[in-house]
Amino acid sequence: MSSLKNSFKIAVLPGDGIGREVMPACLEVIDAAVKAAGAPPMSFETHQAGAQFYAESGEALPASALEACRKADAILFGAMGWPDIRFPDGTEIIPQLDLRMEFGLFAGVRPIRWFPGLPKVLSDPRAEGIDFVLVREQTEGLFYARGRGEIRDDQEAYDTMQITRAGTERVTEFAFQLAAQRKRRGRPGVVTCVDKANVFSSMAFFRKIFDEVAEKHPDVQKDYAYVDALALNMVKKPWALDVLVTENMFGDILSDLAAGLIGGMGMAASADIGEHYGLFQPAHGTAPDIAGKGVANPSAMILSGAMMLDWLAVKHCEPKLADAARLIEAAVEHTLFTKAAVPMEYGGTANCADMTRSVIGALGAVR
Amino acid sequence: MSSLKNSFKIAVLPGDGIGREVMPACLEVIDAAVKAAGAPPMSFETHQAGAQFYAESGEALPASALEACRKADAILFGAMGWPDIRFPDGTEIIPQLDLRMEFGLFAGVRPIRWFPGLPKVLSDPRAEGIDFVLVREQTEGLFYARGRGEIRDDQEAYDTMQITRAGTERVTEFAFQLAAQRKRRGRPGVVTCVDKANVFSSMAFFRKIFDEVAEKHPDVQKDYAYVDALALNMVKKPWALDVLVTENMFGDILSDLAAGLIGGMGMAASADIGEHYGLFQPAHGTAPDIAGKGVANPSAMILSGAMMLDWLAVKHCEPKLADAARLIEAAVEHTLFTKAAVPMEYGGTANCADMTRSVIGALGAVR
Ligand SMILES: CC(C)[C@H](C(=O)O)[C@@H](O)C(=O)O
Ligand SMILES: CC(C)[C@H](C(=O)O)[C@@H](O)C(=O)O
Repeated sequence: MSSLKNSFKIAVLPGDGIGREVMPACLEVIDAAVKAAGAPPMSFETHQAGAQFYAESGEALPASALEACRKADAILFGAMGWPDIRFPDGTEIIPQLDLRMEFGLFAGVRPIRWFPGLPKVLSDPRAEGIDFVLVREQTEGLFYARGRGEIRDDQEAYDTMQITRAGTERVTEFAFQLAAQRKRRGRPGVVTCVDKANVFSSMAFFRKIFDEVAEKHPDVQKDYAYVDALALNMVKKPWALDVLVTENMFGDILSDLAAGLIGGMGMAASADIGEHYGLFQPAHGTAPDIAGKGVANPSAMILSGAMMLDWLAVKHCEPKLADAARLIEAAVEHTLFTKAAVPMEYGGTANCADMTRSVIGALGAVR
Repeated sequence: MSSLKNSFKIAVLPGDGIGREVMPACLEVIDAAVKAAGAPPMSFETHQAGAQFYAESGEALPASALEACRKADAILFGAMGWPDIRFPDGTEIIPQLDLRMEFGLFAGVRPIRWFPGLPKVLSDPRAEGIDFVLVREQTEGLFYARGRGEIRDDQEAYDTMQITRAGTERVTEFAFQLAAQRKRRGRPGVVTCVDKANVFSSMAFFRKIFDEVAEKHPDVQKDYAYVDALALNMVKKPWALDVLVTENMFGDILSDLAAGLIGGMGMAASADIGEHYGLFQPAHGTAPDIAGKGVANPSAMILSGAMMLDWLAVKHCEPKLADAARLIEAAVEHTLFTKAAVPMEYGGTANCADMTRSVIGALGAVR
């Protein structure tokens, strides 16, 4: 079976700050990789959105951009938000959260894998074996409280965490399927439920649903961890982790921590996956301190592009897109391993353009 | 000015599992250190409490134990909780949370300091300069939800986070005072407010109160971090941190992560401080896997004992108690640095008794 599509339409939202710098890098690399793999081409449609666009236009996420996302085969997202540009009520402009709700992007998939060329953050040599995926629930949990918080008389404030059966079922099901896939590629096949079931009834409920879903996946092992203990184990023996599934806020914290183990946000790709839509974005923000200088490391954005190709490959039965994804990953690894270009954050001198050129150059070497 | 007291009464709750093993070690070390420093002696009154006691007696935290805690000058707490021993409603037996509420122990003080002899978890040599304190709010935040959670029709569950003005004022005030004290000892004097003010109104409220309190402390710098970014920075450059203050649940996660940076729970002392009461306990749990074997590392419990002596020293104007605390810290450091005893978790063979003997032996050497 092969895909009926002979091209894919990608909605592109570069956003603010370094989002606008790493995105062109990513698009160039995708173009080159797709061509090299003989996969159907992508057509990119770029839309303005974010805090800086809000400052110019009064709109953070215009209807036309949303409409383009809805019609596209996938969404590429850079980074959004800018210090000092806020909505009139003082809240920050973070359309990524709106998009998660709007498109039901319930699974925040954050792969953490060490490969040669990345900094050795932990001194234990086993850290070279770090290879796990954190699946963050993204449509409820504590983030349910966003826009619903209550402040009483300047004395007390309340925010409510919501865990639903449906929300937990779909995200844990996603995690088990992911672990099963990974098992076929030689990983252990274990999903760890990360919660605080010893204290919160919503978390005990989360674990209960997790158990129900686990029943349907006898091929995959299940495990539990309290979120505090898991944070410790992520530092002590992250190489023992496979797939983690957790509540929205916990996932937010743990995924940043996890990125720290492989050298920080410069390498942290991510995918926000829903039933119908997929949005791919680096885990980093807009980095106002370095924005505009062309020095941002585009690797996380480029690797998020590879995640998009993988997702499209499965969704549209087009293995050549997966080939293109592998090429991109190999080219990034090759670039870092050979030190063809060393990003500034790792003590090198490669700016965004240098990194991009090296990765594209490496596409030939790794084929 | 010197203390009017010629002895101090300490309520001792060893609790469950390894709590029962590390507590005697701690009491022995305190006795020896107090004697060596010429400080007033401690009289220890031990009470049973915890999950195993609940299984025998039907009471997890008997009124007599509570009463003893109320009358004592300080409370020493081992660890409580046991797998499979639960209350009839299925909830875990974790009296430490009840004690925090009962005695208003609003500040969870968790010092994280690397010293020679500890494992080098991070490969960056600057990690030898890790020396920060996490102050966790302990009477509200998400833990306000404990016992208040709601599950509707097996479909949805809710837990509510509470942030109060009074609760935030007292814990941030505590953090600023701590940073000022540390500044006098050469530390930078910076308090970082760790929150998620970009998403939650309760967290924006927390930050607002933090700002108000900061106004009263012009001698100390203030800083902000989102909790996710802070988790990353704790891995990337923990040596840059000084004092952190944060919400209950965030503090729970971050303090475990932080302990990971200095070799895990075996070294993680902590103090739960209220307006009138102080409870001192290691950050580790009951460790059912190794309990009963006498192999637990008592260092975290012993160092928590030193925190108690420091607290009593200030409260009762008795500098000799602070001398005793310094002796204990130096003796633990000496033991680890000279490898007079190497705990099993760091690849050595020293059991609980060996560690205790070495630390007591070292008290003479470090005087
Ligand atoms: C920008 C911020 C609101 C967002 C979040 O908290 O989800 C970010 O940290 C992330 O992880 O995608
Ligand atoms: C035992 C548990 C409920 C407790 C907490 O979550 O506070 C522990 O993790 C701690 O940090 O003291």
